[in-house]
Amino acid sequence: MTFDLVLVGFGNVARRFVALLKERRAVLEREHALQARVIAVATRRHGHAFWPGGLDAVSLARRIERGKSIGSDAVSGSSRTGSLSSLEMLRRVVARSGAAARRRRLVVVETTTLDIARGEPATRHIRAALAGGAHVITANKGPVAFAYRSLARAADRAGRRFLFEGTVMDGIPVFNLVRETLPTVNVIGFRGVVNSTTNYILTAMEQGQGFDEALARMQAVGIAEADASLDVDGWDAAAKTAALANVLLGASLTPRTVERRGISAETGRQAIAARAAGRRLKLVARAVREGRRITARVAPEELPADDLLAGLEGQQNALILQTDLLEEFAIVQRSGSLTETAYALLSDLVTIARDVRTAGASRRSRPRAPGRRSL
Amino acid sequence: MTFDLVLVGFGNVARRFVALLKERRAVLEREHALQARVIAVATRRHGHAFWPGGLDAVSLARRIERGKSIGSDAVSGSSRTGSLSSLEMLRRVVARSGAAARRRRLVVVETTTLDIARGEPATRHIRAALAGGAHVITANKGPVAFAYRSLARAADRAGRRFLFEGTVMDGIPVFNLVRETLPTVNVIGFRGVVNSTTNYILTAMEQGQGFDEALARMQAVGIAEADASLDVDGWDAAAKTAALANVLLGASLTPRTVERRGISAETGRQAIAARAAGRRLKLVARAVREGRRITARVAPEELPADDLLAGLEGQQNALILQTDLLEEFAIVQRSGSLTETAYALLSDLVTIARDVRTAGASRRSRPRAPGRRSL
Repeated sequence: MTFDLVLVGFGNVARRFVALLKERRAVLEREHALQARVIAVATRRHGHAFWPGGLDAVSLARRIERGKSIGSDAVSGSSRTGSLSSLEMLRRVVARSGAAARRRRLVVVETTTLDIARGEPATRHIRAALAGGAHVITANKGPVAFAYRSLARAADRAGRRFLFEGTVMDGIPVFNLVRETLPTVNVIGFRGVVNSTTNYILTAMEQGQGFDEALARMQAVGIAEADASLDVDGWDAAAKTAALANVLLGASLTPRTVERRGISAETGRQAIAARAAGRRLKLVARAVREGRRITARVAPEELPADDLLAGLEGQQNALILQTDLLEEFAIVQRSGSLTETAYALLSDLVTIARDVRTAGASRRSRPRAPGRRSL
Repeated sequence: MTFDLVLVGFGNVARRFVALLKERRAVLEREHALQARVIAVATRRHGHAFWPGGLDAVSLARRIERGKSIGSDAVSGSSRTGSLSSLEMLRRVVARSGAAARRRRLVVVETTTLDIARGEPATRHIRAALAGGAHVITANKGPVAFAYRSLARAADRAGRRFLFEGTVMDGIPVFNLVRETLPTVNVIGFRGVVNSTTNYILTAMEQGQGFDEALARMQAVGIAEADASLDVDGWDAAAKTAALANVLLGASLTPRTVERRGISAETGRQAIAARAAGRRLKLVARAVREGRRITARVAPEELPADDLLAGLEGQQNALILQTDLLEEFAIVQRSGSLTETAYALLSDLVTIARDVRTAGASRRSRPRAPGRRSL
C-alpha cells in the first residue's frame, strides 16, 4: 500500500523523517505493508514543487543542505510552482491528488515552525488538507494547542486521521500511548517537565554556568528555538500544556490561557539555593480537571529531592499522568534527538497505514467514541 | 459484538476483573462496541461450572467471597461439572463453544497462580484454549516466562490472540506500548525494578524496619506472594525478566536461566550503608542483547542517587527501555493495586475486540510481522 506524502515545511525534522523512511523501508514494507513516496514539498524559504510521480526526497534534502533551492533548476518531471504561498500550493497539490485522497492514501506532513500567537499558517494548512481528503501528521504544536477540538471534528467529518505524536516529548509515545493502550481509562490531570532547553539551563546554572551561556549552548546544538523567548518565557511549555490538556482532558485551552511564568537568571539563583537546601527547582507544566473546570499552569516550582521530576537532568523530560483506573504513572524521556522527533512522524504514518488497511471493516462497524475518535 | 469469557482461576484479580467489566460496561459498549459475558468459571478450590447462556459473575464473586463454592447449590441453567481438572473442564467448555470460537468471540482468561518450576498448568490451559479457537488473556507470568515462543506460534497458527499485559507492572502498558506505539523500533535491552515486595522491604529496612516485619506487612496487604521465596529470592523478578526478554528481545529464557540473587536481612544492612553513602540499593532486573546472545540478571545493585531506579520508593516499579531509534526511555508505576492488574485484562480484551472488528480487512491484507505478530 503506497502513500503519497505532501511535505509542508522541509526543515531539520522533515529532512530527518525522509531519511528515516528510507532507512526503515524494508521493515515498514515487511511488517506494515507500508510504502511511501514524497510527491510534493512546500517550503517558505527554499521554494516548492510538485512531482506527481514521486521524487527522491533524500537527494532533495541534500540539495537543500548544500544551499540550493527546490525549484532553482530543472528536476525531471517537476511542475514548477513559482511564488505561491504554501497554503495555495498545498491546495493545488491536494486537488490534483484526488485519486490518492479518495483511496485514503494521501498524507500531508506539516512541520512548519511554531507560531505562538495564533498557530498559523499551520492550522490553515491542516484544515485545507483534511478538506481535500488527506490525512494529516504534524510535529507542530500550534494547531493542537490552538484548535484541537475543531481540527479533530474536521478530521472526523472527513473520515481522515489527524495525528501529532511529535508535539510533546518527541517520539516517546504520549498521545498514541493513551489512545492505543489505555482504553476506558480517564486521564484527570498531569504534571511534567516538557521543555528541554529550560531544564538544561536550570541544571547548568545549578552547576555554576551563566544563564546566557547555557541558553547559547542549547541554541548552538539546535535544541533551543531561534526565538529564545519561546523557551525561557515558558511559551513552548505552555503550548505543550495546552495540547496535552486539549487532547487528554478535553479542554479548550490555548497557550495564552495557560497561566505562565518562565525562567531567568534570577530563577537560576533560586535553583542554586533550592539545591543547597536539598531541593530542586524545575519548570513544571501541570493541568487538572475539577468538575467541568480545567486549570493549567507552567511555572518554576521547588520540588522535594525525591520527586520524580526533581531527578531530571539536562534535557530530560517527563510526564506524570493522573488517571482514574491506573492512578499515577509516568513516562520519562532520557535523551532527545532529531531522530526521535522524526520518528514521531513515522509512527503516526504507521498508525494511518494500519487504519487504512482495516478501513473496510472499520467503516462498517467502528463505533462512536466521542471526544476520542480523532485523538 | 459479544464475547464469551471462560475464566480459569477466579481469585482476587479475576473477581476484580468481572467487577470492572460491569463498572465500565457503558463506555466499553459505546467506544469499543464491546460486550462480554462470563460463560464458565474453573477454579481449583471452589469448583467449576458452565453456563452456556452466561451468568452474573459479580454475584458469583460475592458468593465465593462469602465462602461458598461455585457448584455447591443449584444455579439456574448450570451444568455441574463435578471433579474435573481445570484443564479437562476448559477443553469441554471450549469444545461446546464452537460457534463463538469460529466467530472469534471466545476468550479464555487465565489467572491461575504462578508455578515457578514449570509454568504449569497455565501453559497447558493456554495451549488447549488456542487449539480450540479461543483467544487467551493472562495475568500469569509463567506461560510467557517459560513458553512464550511456542505459545506465540500456536496463536499465530490458530489466528487468535495471546495477550499478557498484566504480567509486568500490572496494567501500566509495557507489552501493549511496544506493540501498538513503537512500530519499527528495536528494543535492545532494559533494566528496571519490577517486584514491588522487595522494593518495599528494602526501603522499609532503610528506615529501620526489620526484614520479617516488612515482608509480613506486604503479605498482610496481599502484595507479597503467599510463598515468600517467590519475592525475596528474586523468582518473581526473574519470571518477569524472562517474560520481558522473551517478548521484547526475542530471547528463549526461563526464570531458571536468568541469573538470580534475591534479598535478605543482610541486604537490608547493605541498603542502610548505601543510603548513608548517598546511594541506594535496589533489586534490579536487566537484560541486554549483544549480537545473538541475550544475557539477563536479577540482583541487588548499588545505584547512584540520581539514577531513575534509585528514586523508587515503597512499592513503585519502573522499566527503562533501551532502543535503537528512541535511545532510552522509562515507564514508572507510582502506585499499584488489584484494580490495576484487573485493568490489564480489560485492556487486553479491548485489543482483541478491536482486532476482531477489523478482522475481515486484516485477514485479507495483514502483512507478516515475524516475531511481532502475536505479541
